[in-house]
Amino acid sequence: MDSAAQSSPARQPTVKEVAKLAGVSPMTVSRTLAGGKNVRPEVQDRVLEAVHALGYYRNENARSIRPGQASGLIGVAITNLGNPYYGNFALGVEEVAAQYGRRIVLGNTGEDPGRERQLIADLIGRQVEGLIVVPTGDQATHLQPESLRGTPLVLASRSVTGVAADAVVLDDVGGAYRGTRTLLDAGHRRIGYLGNVTSVFTGRRRYEGYLRALEEAGIEVDPDLVRRGQQDVETASVAMRELMDLADPPTAVFSANNRNTIGALKEIGARLNSADGEVGALPAIVSFDDFELAEMMPVPVTVVDHDARELGREAARLLFDRLLGEAEPGRIREIEMPTQVRVVRA
Amino acid sequence: MDSAAQSSPARQPTVKEVAKLAGVSPMTVSRTLAGGKNVRPEVQDRVLEAVHALGYYRNENARSIRPGQASGLIGVAITNLGNPYYGNFALGVEEVAAQYGRRIVLGNTGEDPGRERQLIADLIGRQVEGLIVVPTGDQATHLQPESLRGTPLVLASRSVTGVAADAVVLDDVGGAYRGTRTLLDAGHRRIGYLGNVTSVFTGRRRYEGYLRALEEAGIEVDPDLVRRGQQDVETASVAMRELMDLADPPTAVFSANNRNTIGALKEIGARLNSADGEVGALPAIVSFDDFELAEMMPVPVTVVDHDARELGREAARLLFDRLLGEAEPGRIREIEMPTQVRVVRA
Repeated sequence: MDSAAQSSPARQPTVKEVAKLAGVSPMTVSRTLAGGKNVRPEVQDRVLEAVHALGYYRNENARSIRPGQASGLIGVAITNLGNPYYGNFALGVEEVAAQYGRRIVLGNTGEDPGRERQLIADLIGRQVEGLIVVPTGDQATHLQPESLRGTPLVLASRSVTGVAADAVVLDDVGGAYRGTRTLLDAGHRRIGYLGNVTSVFTGRRRYEGYLRALEEAGIEVDPDLVRRGQQDVETASVAMRELMDLADPPTAVFSANNRNTIGALKEIGARLNSADGEVGALPAIVSFDDFELAEMMPVPVTVVDHDARELGREAARLLFDRLLGEAEPGRIREIEMPTQVRVVRA
Repeated sequence: MDSAAQSSPARQPTVKEVAKLAGVSPMTVSRTLAGGKNVRPEVQDRVLEAVHALGYYRNENARSIRPGQASGLIGVAITNLGNPYYGNFALGVEEVAAQYGRRIVLGNTGEDPGRERQLIADLIGRQVEGLIVVPTGDQATHLQPESLRGTPLVLASRSVTGVAADAVVLDDVGGAYRGTRTLLDAGHRRIGYLGNVTSVFTGRRRYEGYLRALEEAGIEVDPDLVRRGQQDVETASVAMRELMDLADPPTAVFSANNRNTIGALKEIGARLNSADGEVGALPAIVSFDDFELAEMMPVPVTVVDHDARELGREAARLLFDRLLGEAEPGRIREIEMPTQVRVVRA
């Protein structure tokens, strides 16, 4: 398609050349690329054909990283596209990639390290220019520069020990600590924990924040109150049921991610809907990750909120900095994004 | 990477050849491709490198559609990746594409026809083998075979007048009709409507189902009760506020999609949380699209449910049928997926 541009990478097409080829004014080219307002569909088609034929990119930065054989693709591996958190994350990545004239090839790993390995090898085989990966676990081999054949990598949301790559993560420890603190400040002493296994970066760090808050308050962790490893709503509901069925159940629960939160709340709802007026005290919930309709819940809810879309944007920015040669070679950047504790329903 | 395979498309690599190149047994190749259980990471890497070097695909069907220059990519254009409905839809597409050794290039249009035009032209320029599009509107020019340069197209969730492409949509009319019927059967006569504009396929059809149920019950539509065009939670909340502030407000509301449902429920929640004991009667909600925590709402909720992931799978199946030459040329297939009306909270 853009063989003309590829054969002479030093020579970049101008908007004037695009306009000439399409038989329109440069203004019409600009309007079309800005969304097509006030430009007839047929004319837009002609302009876009010319854009592709010449390999024209609007963004000046994009030009400077446009090598002869670039695929124009960024590989993105996420763990669960059905989780709105990751949908918004992908939106953020796509938004920044589009500014550089790049598209995203998206794959879902389903929290399966085997599928992650396959996906990444496959994306490398397709010659993506860069990779943004939400890693499923602690395996590092397939994320080493040799396995990636030098393709720049950014880890997002989770980091991996032994992988020297740029990373953007959340302030997991601080967010979990402050979330748990709100429960302690409200007088709770038996605080349950629902979350991921500690082999997952975020699972480990959020548990650490929970522990730190308890220790600071002089409370020893009761292992009966800690349930880890639930990755979907169904298993989270079961874990919550176990907590609520304890002889001495928790008066509050810290949930380390939105899948666990939804599962816990569904279990509370099931008890409310089935009970004959003898529900008893229901636990307050603190949720790492915001969720829709939190203000409608029958129990107090506090969320540890953060911006998934901005996390995606930031991951993409780190990657394009590398691709543009604007990041210092050999110097790894780790960005920690802030979280906000917000009382949704007291 | 797979230039060997590309230069002789008739000659497909075998699992034995992959095994030989990787220096492992054919069983190890199979195990690696099935997820890598019981195969050491370094060995998996070797196998996957050999797979890419030879251009090997496990699926027999995939081989037969593997032309010399295929990009191995399927373009997917959706309207809002932040909506879990579309996240699950994309998961279904990805799942089937992976079975054929293909990956998806995903773009978000944000319900903007201009961005859709650009995205599709861009995907065509990247030589995707097929396109799956959730169209934003009624524009057809950029979806014609000439604009697509013959790339097979499947429309999903929404169809477009004047575009002769395979399509998989929901039973919008029937679902909306049956959802509205549950409200009529419960004795409601003033039933509000929240939904998309009628220039959007699903907006038009779901409104039709609502109308049909009212007409059948001998009820004339009150234009005051109909609010259309809200595409996000915020604007939907405003529309719901207007309905509830009417001198003669609706006793129930049919919401035509989950963004409108969440917005409507947030407005109900805001009134409950702010009121000083004088909330009055709250409307029952019927929601086209299921949503999480529906059973926890303070008003009766019925959902018109459907399987977004299966819709994605079906769209991909239609596309691969075309690519495999198993679909009759010139014969357009339109599949309507069923919906289930489910009372979540009476």
